[in-house]
Amino acid sequence: MKNPQLNRHGELIHLLSTEGLPRAILTQILDTAAQFVSVNDREVKKVPLLRGKSVFNLFFENSTRTRTTFEIAATRLSADVFNLDIARSSTAKGETLLDTIANLSAMAADIFVVRHSESGAPYLIAQHVAPHVHVINAGDGRHAHPTQGLLDMYTIRHYKKDFTQLSVAIVGDVLHSRVARSDIHALTTLGCPDVRVVGPRTLVPSDLSHLGVRVCHSLEEGIRDCDVVIALRLQNERMSGALLPSSQEFHQSFGLTPERLRWAKPDAIVMHPGPVNRGVEIDSSVVDGAQSVVLPQVTFGIAVRMAVMGIIAGNEA
Amino acid sequence: MKNPQLNRHGELIHLLSTEGLPRAILTQILDTAAQFVSVNDREVKKVPLLRGKSVFNLFFENSTRTRTTFEIAATRLSADVFNLDIARSSTAKGETLLDTIANLSAMAADIFVVRHSESGAPYLIAQHVAPHVHVINAGDGRHAHPTQGLLDMYTIRHYKKDFTQLSVAIVGDVLHSRVARSDIHALTTLGCPDVRVVGPRTLVPSDLSHLGVRVCHSLEEGIRDCDVVIALRLQNERMSGALLPSSQEFHQSFGLTPERLRWAKPDAIVMHPGPVNRGVEIDSSVVDGAQSVVLPQVTFGIAVRMAVMGIIAGNEA
Amino acid sequence: MKNPQLNRHGELIHLLSTEGLPRAILTQILDTAAQFVSVNDREVKKVPLLRGKSVFNLFFENSTRTRTTFEIAATRLSADVFNLDIARSSTAKGETLLDTIANLSAMAADIFVVRHSESGAPYLIAQHVAPHVHVINAGDGRHAHPTQGLLDMYTIRHYKKDFTQLSVAIVGDVLHSRVARSDIHALTTLGCPDVRVVGPRTLVPSDLSHLGVRVCHSLEEGIRDCDVVIALRLQNERMSGALLPSSQEFHQSFGLTPERLRWAKPDAIVMHPGPVNRGVEIDSSVVDGAQSVVLPQVTFGIAVRMAVMGIIAGNEA
Repeated sequence: MKNPQLNRHGELIHLLSTEGLPRAILTQILDTAAQFVSVNDREVKKVPLLRGKSVFNLFFENSTRTRTTFEIAATRLSADVFNLDIARSSTAKGETLLDTIANLSAMAADIFVVRHSESGAPYLIAQHVAPHVHVINAGDGRHAHPTQGLLDMYTIRHYKKDFTQLSVAIVGDVLHSRVARSDIHALTTLGCPDVRVVGPRTLVPSDLSHLGVRVCHSLEEGIRDCDVVIALRLQNERMSGALLPSSQEFHQSFGLTPERLRWAKPDAIVMHPGPVNRGVEIDSSVVDGAQSVVLPQVTFGIAVRMAVMGIIAGNEA
Repeated sequence: MKNPQLNRHGELIHLLSTEGLPRAILTQILDTAAQFVSVNDREVKKVPLLRGKSVFNLFFENSTRTRTTFEIAATRLSADVFNLDIARSSTAKGETLLDTIANLSAMAADIFVVRHSESGAPYLIAQHVAPHVHVINAGDGRHAHPTQGLLDMYTIRHYKKDFTQLSVAIVGDVLHSRVARSDIHALTTLGCPDVRVVGPRTLVPSDLSHLGVRVCHSLEEGIRDCDVVIALRLQNERMSGALLPSSQEFHQSFGLTPERLRWAKPDAIVMHPGPVNRGVEIDSSVVDGAQSVVLPQVTFGIAVRMAVMGIIAGNEA
Repeated sequence: MKNPQLNRHGELIHLLSTEGLPRAILTQILDTAAQFVSVNDREVKKVPLLRGKSVFNLFFENSTRTRTTFEIAATRLSADVFNLDIARSSTAKGETLLDTIANLSAMAADIFVVRHSESGAPYLIAQHVAPHVHVINAGDGRHAHPTQGLLDMYTIRHYKKDFTQLSVAIVGDVLHSRVARSDIHALTTLGCPDVRVVGPRTLVPSDLSHLGVRVCHSLEEGIRDCDVVIALRLQNERMSGALLPSSQEFHQSFGLTPERLRWAKPDAIVMHPGPVNRGVEIDSSVVDGAQSVVLPQVTFGIAVRMAVMGIIAGNEA
C-alpha cells in the first residue's frame, strides 16, 4: 500500500504518524530543526520560509498548548496563521468534515494542522484535500502524535547523540498514549536497540511486544541502566474503568522519585510530554532536577514543528 | 436621502448593502477582485495594500466561517486583524453598542467588519463612527449580506460573462435569506433581465415581486432554461412556525436533484452560499457534480472581500 | 527590599505597579509614548521595534477590551502576539501556574501580559520567569492596573502639562478600584500636590489617607476647583454586601452631572477608565461633553502600552 505521507519521489507531503516514515526523512526533520535552534539552545530564529503561506489550525479537540506551539512555529516561519474555533463553526451546523475541509482548502490554505479525538481523522482529511494542501496530525485519538514523537527524538539526539547505543524506557499510561506510540515507531526506525514500555498490566498490555519493545511491569526492571526515561502523563481524563489505578496507587508503584531514578544510568535524562502531574507520575524534585530536560523539550518542539512545516510546504503532491 | 455608503464624490466608503450601489461601483469591485485571483483561479495573492491598517472583526453573532474569510482577506492585504470576542466583552458589562464602537475607533481602527443579528446595526454603526473608520456589513439579521452577494456576482460573471443575457433562479428559503436579498439587488443593478425566486409559499412570499423578480412556487417553472441556479441553505435554525416545511418536505418539492437540474440549461452553473445541507436543498451528486461552482465561490469570496477592503480604505469620508 | 521591577542599573524590566516606580521611569514612559502619537493625536504609528519578539497575552481573568489594547500595541511594534485561552488550557488540566509560565517561557517568549483575579499573581510570575522574559501586569485583583495608571498620567500631562500645580479628584468606587491605586501612586511620584479621593464612606474608607491623599465624602468638596476629575466605574460585578449603595443611590449623591461639574475649574478635564455606566457614575452629557477626554484616553492607552513594551524589551535582567 502506498504511504500517504510521501509523494512519488519519496518526499514528505503530510505528517500523519511516525509509523512508516523512513529513517532518512526522520533525520531530515531533525537536521532541519537544528537550524532553527540557535547556539544558546533557547532562541528559535524567525525566518521568511513560509511568507505568504496560510496555516490553518483545525482543533476539533481542544488543546491550547499544542495549538499555541504550532501557531508559534508557523509565525516564526512568517506564515499567516488562522485559528478556527471549529467547535463553534459550520460543523456544528451539520456540515460534514469533508465539506469543511473542502471549503477551507478553497480559501487557498497551504497547511492544515489537525487535532481530532478520533483516530485516523487526519488520514481521512489527507486523502481528500486538494493537492496543494498539506496535513499535519497534531494528535488523533489514541493513535499518534507525531510532532511530539519527533521533538522527543530531537531531544534524545541532542543529549545522547547516537540512537544505536541507547536504552529508552517509556513509563506509565502507555495504553492511552499517542505519544508512546509515536515515540516507539520513531525510536525503532532510528535504530534504538532497546525500547521498554513500563507500567502496570492495566496500562501496559503485554501484547504491545509486537511493536518490538520490551514490556516491563516493574519500574526497577524497566528503567535499570536506561539512558533515557520518558514519563508519560497519567491521563485521568481519558481513563475509565474500575481496574485502572488511582493516582496514588500509580505513584506508589511507578512514580518517578529521585531514589528510583538512581536505577537508571547516572547521566540518564528524564523527559515528559507535559503537562506534568507533579507527585503522580513524577516527583517535583525530579521535574526540577538536574537530569530533567522537560523544558528543553518544549523549546525543541517549536523548532521541530517549524522543520516539519518548512519541509512539507516545499514538496509537491 | 443621502446614500450612507458613498462619499460626496460618489466613492464607496462603507459596504452596508448591495441595494443602492451604482453599477459602476459594483463593476469596480468585481474588476478589482479579478486582480487578486491568479491565473489558475486558485491562489489569491498577498499584497501590501493595507500594510499598517487595522481591521476589527466585530461579530455580535457568531459565524466562524465568515469571520475567517474576512480575516484571510485582510491578512492577504497585509493589514493587522483583531478578532474581538464581542459576546464576552464590554457590551456584556452594560456598555452601549455605540460606546463600544467609539472606543474601538479610538484605537486607530480603519475598518470594522460587523456581523449582527439585528437588521440595520451596521447602518447605525456607520452613522456614528469617526470619519476615518470604514464599515463592512458581514450580515445583519435577515436584511443583507453584501459581500456574499458580490462574490455571487463575481462567480456569475466569471462563468457567464454578460449579465444582460442571463436567467438566474434563486431557490429555497428566500424569506429568511439575507443572501437572496443581496443577490437580487446586485443582479438587478448589473442588468440581469430575468431573476426568479423559487420556493414554497411559506418561504417565498408573493409580495417579493416588488423587487423586480418573478415569484415561482414550482421548481420546474422556476429553473426552466436558467443559466444560473442559486440554491439557498434551508436555515432551520432561523425558522419557526408550524406552517414551515420540514427538511424532507422541502427536498421532496424543491430539492435540487440531478434529474431536476436538467430543467435548467445544459451549461447552467449551480451555486450555494454554504454550509450545504446535503440531501435537503441540494443532492450530494449535484454539489459534487460538474455544474457545481460552490468551491470556486469560496475562493472568489476571499478576492471580493480583499477588493472591498482595498477600495473603501482608499476613499475618504 | 529590592524593587522587582528594575534591574541593577535601575532600568525597567517588568511593569507590575506604579508604586515604587521612580519619577524618571514614569517620565521615560510618557516621553516614549509621545513618540507613538502622531501630530493629529489619533494615529498611532507602526514601528519595527519588536520585530521577531513574542508577546503572550495571559488573561486568567477575561477582559476582551484590555487584551485587545495590548494586542494592538504589540502588533504596532511589529511583535508577534499569541493570545492564550488560558481558562481552557493546561491550568485546567491541573498544571500549576508556575509550570504553565515555565513552559511558555521555553517557547522563547519575550513578554507576558498577565491579567489575574488575584492580587500579586504578576509578582509571583515575575519572580519565577526566565531572565529573558518580561512581565506586564494588566490588572491583578484590586491591587494594581499600572498601564491604566500610566495612560491616565499621559492624558493629564497632555492636557495640563505640569503635574506640580494640579488638583486631581478620583471619584467613586475607590475601594474596589485598582485604577485608583495605580493613579494615586503615579500622581504622587510625579509631584501632584493635591490628590483627593471622593465617594461614600462604604466605597472610600477613611484609612486611605495613608496614601497621601485627601479623603472627601462630599462630591462638592471633593471636586471643587479641581483641574482633573477621574470618574471610576461603579463595579457592581465586584461589589457585594448590603451596605453598598445602589446605582441610583450612588448617582444621587456622586453621579457626575453637568451642574455638578461646574464645581470644578471651568477648564477641568473629565476622565474615566471605561466601560462607562452612563447615568450611574457619570451623565451621558458629561461623557459626550466638551470637557470629556475619555476617548483620547483610549488612544493614548495604545501608545503608552507600546512605550512600556518597547522599554522593557530593551533592558536586560
